[in-house]
Amino acid sequence: MADTETHFFSIDGPIRLREGGELAAADLAYESWGTLNAEGTNAILIFHALSGSHHACGHTPAIPGTGTLWQPEMQDGWWNDMIGAGKALDTSKFFIVCANFLGGCYGSTGPASLNPATGKPYGSTFPHVTTADQADLQVKLLDHLGIGKLHAAIGPSVGGLIALAFATRFPDRVKNVISIASGYKTTVLNRLILFEQILAIENDPHFNGGDYYDNDGPLYGLALARMISHKTFVHLDAIERRARQDVVQSDDILAWYRVRDQFQSYMLHQGKKFTKRFDANTYLRINDMWSRFDGAIEGDAATPELLFSRCAEAGQRWLVFSIDSDFCFYPEEQTELTKLLEQAKVNVMHVTVHSDKGHDSFLLEPDYYTPHISWVLGKD
Amino acid sequence: MADTETHFFSIDGPIRLREGGELAAADLAYESWGTLNAEGTNAILIFHALSGSHHACGHTPAIPGTGTLWQPEMQDGWWNDMIGAGKALDTSKFFIVCANFLGGCYGSTGPASLNPATGKPYGSTFPHVTTADQADLQVKLLDHLGIGKLHAAIGPSVGGLIALAFATRFPDRVKNVISIASGYKTTVLNRLILFEQILAIENDPHFNGGDYYDNDGPLYGLALARMISHKTFVHLDAIERRARQDVVQSDDILAWYRVRDQFQSYMLHQGKKFTKRFDANTYLRINDMWSRFDGAIEGDAATPELLFSRCAEAGQRWLVFSIDSDFCFYPEEQTELTKLLEQAKVNVMHVTVHSDKGHDSFLLEPDYYTPHISWVLGKD
Repeated sequence: MADTETHFFSIDGPIRLREGGELAAADLAYESWGTLNAEGTNAILIFHALSGSHHACGHTPAIPGTGTLWQPEMQDGWWNDMIGAGKALDTSKFFIVCANFLGGCYGSTGPASLNPATGKPYGSTFPHVTTADQADLQVKLLDHLGIGKLHAAIGPSVGGLIALAFATRFPDRVKNVISIASGYKTTVLNRLILFEQILAIENDPHFNGGDYYDNDGPLYGLALARMISHKTFVHLDAIERRARQDVVQSDDILAWYRVRDQFQSYMLHQGKKFTKRFDANTYLRINDMWSRFDGAIEGDAATPELLFSRCAEAGQRWLVFSIDSDFCFYPEEQTELTKLLEQAKVNVMHVTVHSDKGHDSFLLEPDYYTPHISWVLGKD
Repeated sequence: MADTETHFFSIDGPIRLREGGELAAADLAYESWGTLNAEGTNAILIFHALSGSHHACGHTPAIPGTGTLWQPEMQDGWWNDMIGAGKALDTSKFFIVCANFLGGCYGSTGPASLNPATGKPYGSTFPHVTTADQADLQVKLLDHLGIGKLHAAIGPSVGGLIALAFATRFPDRVKNVISIASGYKTTVLNRLILFEQILAIENDPHFNGGDYYDNDGPLYGLALARMISHKTFVHLDAIERRARQDVVQSDDILAWYRVRDQFQSYMLHQGKKFTKRFDANTYLRINDMWSRFDGAIEGDAATPELLFSRCAEAGQRWLVFSIDSDFCFYPEEQTELTKLLEQAKVNVMHVTVHSDKGHDSFLLEPDYYTPHISWVLGKD
C-alpha cells in the first residue's frame, strides 16, 4: 500500500473558544480515504479518541511539525481493520475523513504550536477547548471539502462525545450517527479519574503551568497520568496477560521504591512509552474537554429532550455500541444515552458486544462492530 | 468520659525485617480498653486500617512524639461505635488492645522517628515492613501484657490482612478471627492503584527519596495519593452527596488548571487535609506492605491449604464480612478467602452486608456488624 499523507486545512480567525480565549488562526491536520462522489453525499467523518490521531488508516511515515512525537507505533492507522475496501467503513463506497482535534499534538494547532504573535509556543496560553468547539471547526472542514450532509459521523470513546456534539449542533449535516463505547455526560467517577491525571501533571516540577517547551516537560507526571487511565482502557485480565509476557523494565524514575513485579513494570513501561508520543498540554486540554462534557451544554439545549429532538426532526439514525467489559465508559452510560434518544423519538439501535478486552475492544475486534455498521451504512 | 491514653511498649533489637534491614530497637504505641481477666483469656486484638491508628476508642487529646500529625479529627476513636460497654466489642467483658503498626506515624517507631545511631530521622533508611513483621512484633506485645491466647483477632481492610498473618503465624494464640472487608491476596487492580500512589509521592520534587524531614515533604504527591485511594474507600454516591454539601476550596496547588466543580474541590480538600495528619514515608511503607500481601507468603506456607490447615488444627473460628458496594476490597475477595478456609476445613462463616457506603461502611454502620460479632464472641 502506498503511504498515506496528512493534509492541513487552515482556518482564518479570530477563532473564539467557548470557554474564553481566542486564536488568530488554526490548522486542522486531517487525512481522507476513498473518493467523494459528485453529489458530495458519501462522506463519513470519524472523530478519534483521547490520545489518538487523525491517522486512522494506512501508513503515514511522517507529519510535518510533530517533532519526535510521531513515533513508529503511530504510523499505522489505528483503525486499519475497520477502514478499507470491503471493510466496515468501505473505501470503495465512501469518502472517509478524520481530523486531529484542535489542541492536539499531531499536526493540528495546539499548545506546542508557535503563537504567531510571540514566535513562541502557546504553552499555558493555549485556550481550553470543548467538543462544541471541535464540531464548529470540523464543519468548516466539511465546507472546504465540498461535503454537505455526511452519510455518517462516527466516534469511539471521546470521539463519540464529539460525534454527539456535531450531530446535535448540526443536525441537518449528518444522516447516521455511530457512537461506540461513549456517553452522554461524563460520570463523577470519570471526572475524578481525569482530575487525578490533571494533578499528576500539575504536580510535576517540570510542568511550570504549561510553559515547558524549553525543557523535557512533565514526563513523570504525564507517565503517571497515562498509567491511571490505562487501567480503565485495557481490561485487567488483558493487563495481566500482557504483563506476564513483558520484560521487567528498569525503574530509573523512582528514588526509593523498587519495581517488584511485572504488573508494575508493565504499567511503568506504558506510561514512559506514552511520554515519547504525546504532549502533556494536549493531554490536559483533551482531558478537560472530556471531563466537562455534558451533551445538553455542548449543544446549547435546555434539556436532553430538546437537544435530541433536533436529531429526530432531521431524521437521523443512531447506532450505539456498548462493550460489556468496559471500565472506562461503562455500559450504563450507553443505556442512558439510548434512553434519552428514545425519549426524543430518535431512531436508535443499541447493541452490546461481549468482549474480554474492555474499552479497547473497539480498536482490537473489528468483527464485533463491522456487521451492524455495514448494515446501517448500507441502508438508504 | 475520661481521656484515654497511649502507652508505649519498647522492643529490644536487633529487629530484623523480612524484606531486609533491621532496627536496633522499636516502640509500639498502643491503647487498651476494659480489664484483662486473671486467666488472661478475654483479650481481643484489633488491627487498624492503612491510615488509621491504634486509637480505636475514647478520646486521646495528645500522643507524645507525633508532632502536628495528631489532628483533632484523629482524637476520637475510629471505632467508638463498636467498642464499649454493651457494644460489639464489649469492654465490660473483654480486654481490647490495638497497636499502631511498625512504620507508622502515630507513636510507633517509623520513618519519622529518630535513628539513635545518627540522631536524625530514619527517612529513606527505614526498612520495608510486611504483615508478618507486624504479627511477629504484636505477639511480643501480647507476651508483655500477659495474654496467652486471644479470644479474638479482628481487622478491617488492611487490618484484616494482618489479622490473617497473625492467625496463621500463631494459630494457637487466637481463638476467633474476624476479617472485615479484607482479602487473601492483593488483587492486580489494587496493586496498580497502590503503585499509582507510590509514583504520585515519588514524583513530588520534595520527596527526595524519603529524606524530607527538613522541609515540608511531598505534600502534593501525598494529597494526590490520598485522592486516588479515597474514591475506592467511599462509595461514589456518597462522594456526590458529600461534595454537594461542601464549600468549594481554593485551588492554590494548581498552576494552570482551575477547579471546576464540587467533586474536584471535595477530593482536593480530602487530599490536602490528609497531608496534615499523615506522613508520606509511612504511607509508602503501609502501601507497599499491602501491595505485596499474599497470605501463603506471609505465613511461610507452600499453599493456602497448608496455611489454613494450621487454623483448622488449632480449632479457630473465622467470621468474614463482605460489603456489597465495596470498591476497594471487592466481595469476590472475601468469597475467595472463605473458599480457601473451607477447603482447609476451617470453621468459617461469611456474611455480606448491603450498604450504600462502600468500603467505609465498617467505620460508619456498626449495626451491620454488631450482631454477628457479638454472637461469635459470645460463643464458648
